[in-house]
Amino acid sequence: MSKKLNILMFSGEYDKALAALILANTAREMEVEVTMFFAFWGLLLLRDPGKMTLEDKTTFEKMFGIVTPKGPEELPLSRMNMGGLGERMLLKMMQDDKVPPLTAFLDGARKKGVKFYGCKLSVDVMGFKREEFIPEVEIITAEEYLKDALESNMQLFI
Amino acid sequence: MSKKLNILMFSGEYDKALAALILANTAREMEVEVTMFFAFWGLLLLRDPGKMTLEDKTTFEKMFGIVTPKGPEELPLSRMNMGGLGERMLLKMMQDDKVPPLTAFLDGARKKGVKFYGCKLSVDVMGFKREEFIPEVEIITAEEYLKDALESNMQLFI
Amino acid sequence: MSKKLNILMFSGEYDKALAALILANTAREMEVEVTMFFAFWGLLLLRDPGKMTLEDKTTFEKMFGIVTPKGPEELPLSRMNMGGLGERMLLKMMQDDKVPPLTAFLDGARKKGVKFYGCKLSVDVMGFKREEFIPEVEIITAEEYLKDALESNMQLFI
Repeated sequence: MSKKLNILMFSGEYDKALAALILANTAREMEVEVTMFFAFWGLLLLRDPGKMTLEDKTTFEKMFGIVTPKGPEELPLSRMNMGGLGERMLLKMMQDDKVPPLTAFLDGARKKGVKFYGCKLSVDVMGFKREEFIPEVEIITAEEYLKDALESNMQLFI
Repeated sequence: MSKKLNILMFSGEYDKALAALILANTAREMEVEVTMFFAFWGLLLLRDPGKMTLEDKTTFEKMFGIVTPKGPEELPLSRMNMGGLGERMLLKMMQDDKVPPLTAFLDGARKKGVKFYGCKLSVDVMGFKREEFIPEVEIITAEEYLKDALESNMQLFI
Repeated sequence: MSKKLNILMFSGEYDKALAALILANTAREMEVEVTMFFAFWGLLLLRDPGKMTLEDKTTFEKMFGIVTPKGPEELPLSRMNMGGLGERMLLKMMQDDKVPPLTAFLDGARKKGVKFYGCKLSVDVMGFKREEFIPEVEIITAEEYLKDALESNMQLFI
């Protein structure tokens, strides 16, 4: 029976998202089933910058959508961000070692069949609309996340 | 045999505490046993603002108790805190979607029989007294936490 | 059959490293097998301040090695760091309760046979050389980490 990895992606930080997606891609290559449940700041990773909308949103939800990162490449580092300088330095260091940027790992995960779930409560509170996300995202509840996690071999909170 | 969820609550941040307590409440509603082990900054969530004391504390312990958040509603956000503005914005957005504040989830967890443990080492170092916490808290060691965690189906570090 | 604990050490923060190493030491005392996989900022914990080198490094890698913490005692706190004041306060509070500093827990883990692994991708990107780390470190891939984690009873992302 295949193994199952479950990741609750809570953080909206470039380096943490990179760690999570590298694990997700690697696990799929090992034929491990992978579920990622994006909650709170993790949802920012799923935004498609070309599909942002202000319709059907409260004033705060509009503001929130405007001031927060609009997809993977806009996420800040978890430390040493220094107004973006730290991030540019990390991206250059990754390039020097032929490590692709975050978006490549996100696309890899999508192609390899990682299951993408968005947390309903977070989506509702932040006011995001389903069409603002990449198409693979299915919106589920905390209960559905827990059912999947409790049956997985490994659960991480990132 | 019922499933068991074990959460090591390390962070003292509003949004992380919210994530942890939403999971704890939901798991209890699914008849999953839930243990929460509060260590380091996580202890701040267990403080009862009305029961603060300065007795039997060293100077640093008194200072620590005064400058740190005095319970759930004083915890800062993990990001976008902006001196409390980000937090007020989040609370308003939660209200707009009829999501109750953190204290309601804490009280829900207490009523639903989530087991509340405080980390002995953290309590000793920070100088907190047992009576400063909500009454359900039992102070245990890292070894007791590990025994429980190793027998759980799912362990998260939040 | 003995139980297995697997910790992915992602953070390079004093208090998080302390939590992880206290758990590692305690688990070993309970005859639990312990694997720690140091990735991203977690690698900073493995640096031996006396073995820093600038050889065979790109300009950014040299800069990175210079500006980042050079071992356990240089790691900042995850919060309340206040330019090091918060850290000195915590260290004094630990001393008052006879809790040894982080390095003691790291050395304890090394003596007790905790397995120390460094993440190959992180090591390559940051430009660290194997000899800059404590000698117990073995460099492995994400796939090898996952193999070990999927067979463990408990996995934490710290």
